[in-house]
Amino acid sequence: MTDRSAADRLLAVLAAFDQEHPALRLTDISRRAGLSLTTAHRLAGALTAWGALERDASGVYHVGLRLWEVAALAPRGLGLRQLALPYLEDLYEATHENVQLAVRDDTEVVYIEWLSGRSAVGVHIRVGARWPLHATGVGLALLAHGDPGLQEAYCAAPLAAFTPHTITDPVHLRRALAEVRRSGVAVSDRQVADDALSVAAPVRGPDGVVAAAVSVVVPHDGARIPALVPAVRLAARGISRALGWQPTAH
Amino acid sequence: MTDRSAADRLLAVLAAFDQEHPALRLTDISRRAGLSLTTAHRLAGALTAWGALERDASGVYHVGLRLWEVAALAPRGLGLRQLALPYLEDLYEATHENVQLAVRDDTEVVYIEWLSGRSAVGVHIRVGARWPLHATGVGLALLAHGDPGLQEAYCAAPLAAFTPHTITDPVHLRRALAEVRRSGVAVSDRQVADDALSVAAPVRGPDGVVAAAVSVVVPHDGARIPALVPAVRLAARGISRALGWQPTAH
Repeated sequence: MTDRSAADRLLAVLAAFDQEHPALRLTDISRRAGLSLTTAHRLAGALTAWGALERDASGVYHVGLRLWEVAALAPRGLGLRQLALPYLEDLYEATHENVQLAVRDDTEVVYIEWLSGRSAVGVHIRVGARWPLHATGVGLALLAHGDPGLQEAYCAAPLAAFTPHTITDPVHLRRALAEVRRSGVAVSDRQVADDALSVAAPVRGPDGVVAAAVSVVVPHDGARIPALVPAVRLAARGISRALGWQPTAH
Repeated sequence: MTDRSAADRLLAVLAAFDQEHPALRLTDISRRAGLSLTTAHRLAGALTAWGALERDASGVYHVGLRLWEVAALAPRGLGLRQLALPYLEDLYEATHENVQLAVRDDTEVVYIEWLSGRSAVGVHIRVGARWPLHATGVGLALLAHGDPGLQEAYCAAPLAAFTPHTITDPVHLRRALAEVRRSGVAVSDRQVADDALSVAAPVRGPDGVVAAAVSVVVPHDGARIPALVPAVRLAARGISRALGWQPTAH
């Protein structure tokens, strides 16, 4: 057995945990990771000894604190989130609506931070959740500023619908992406949920490349987009500056 | 080569990353993990393919987004933090001082969240940082409500001093822990830094067992402890309730 296959088995144990399965018994780990019970037991033991997993009194495994500590070093995870948090809090104070920070991973957005407003719409997204790029405001902002090759490939693939308002026509999506680049903000109007609308803006890194996106999600009814746009853009620029981005002359 | 040793090697690669070393070249990984360059290369490759590490254009490895996503499932990490955040924000709004949430890992506290006040004292602790239990407010709160065996072992071991005010006498520490249990709050007065004071309170889980601690850190000069105590206790109780704790009749 090579290191490589052993590494893949160990990572398969970690990958058995996801948002729908945050707590697993050994039999669940074995089944979800495609490993024998013996192997699952040995690997879960190694991960528990190290602190990547924790086993509670009833024998159920959870993701452990040590993994969280290492993961806190991820520049696109907690690092980015910690730097962005003051700006997200200001955006929340200014709007009192759901505020999100997300990054792109291939063809999906991953939510890095989510501050919930008291009067927030019923959109339930957890930190660490994924969503396809074309439906959400942050996804549209990230896709519109992504590599042209990515955009073409994305538009050429089937586009899943989540509501009757989700963009599923590639021609329509290309037009929407051009509009995002022109206006500097992305609006997702009931594309994720029938009652929600989001306004997003791109966050740039020191090299000027879009590294993340920030958004607010508000109830569709009564949404005042013109009032949200400056606040979202300001928050995005604040985070960009904190990342080391410097605006050019024009 | 057994799975077990391969697992340990893979985890040694992850463990090579810490707060002082968040970005590593392959030679650094090899040296810090005690692995040959060939093995380090193979394992870093497996971790990168999976997304636990990310390799930038200059060949430097960082902790990856996928690890962060899995780690977000840790009940004592982001899960706890996300549940506690509204209460921490309220505590920040009420005090405008540094606000922390921490859990105990063996003989240390690990900071899960840290909200910085604008007028904050110069205490620089990152999320994911560790600190010995006897010096910090959160550490005293966690130790005072820990298992009696833990408390005895801790008091019997040498107690490191960080300032002239750090408790290093076991008799003094035992008395301080009893006072924490009596009063319901822990005060660390210049035990970490000469100019800082923290007030902490324990957070209980559904079983009534102390699962975390919340605190504010304020400048020592002008600190008004009686004004901070109710706010910290209220925040701790709010988080406890959110965790499923129910206060008993008395």
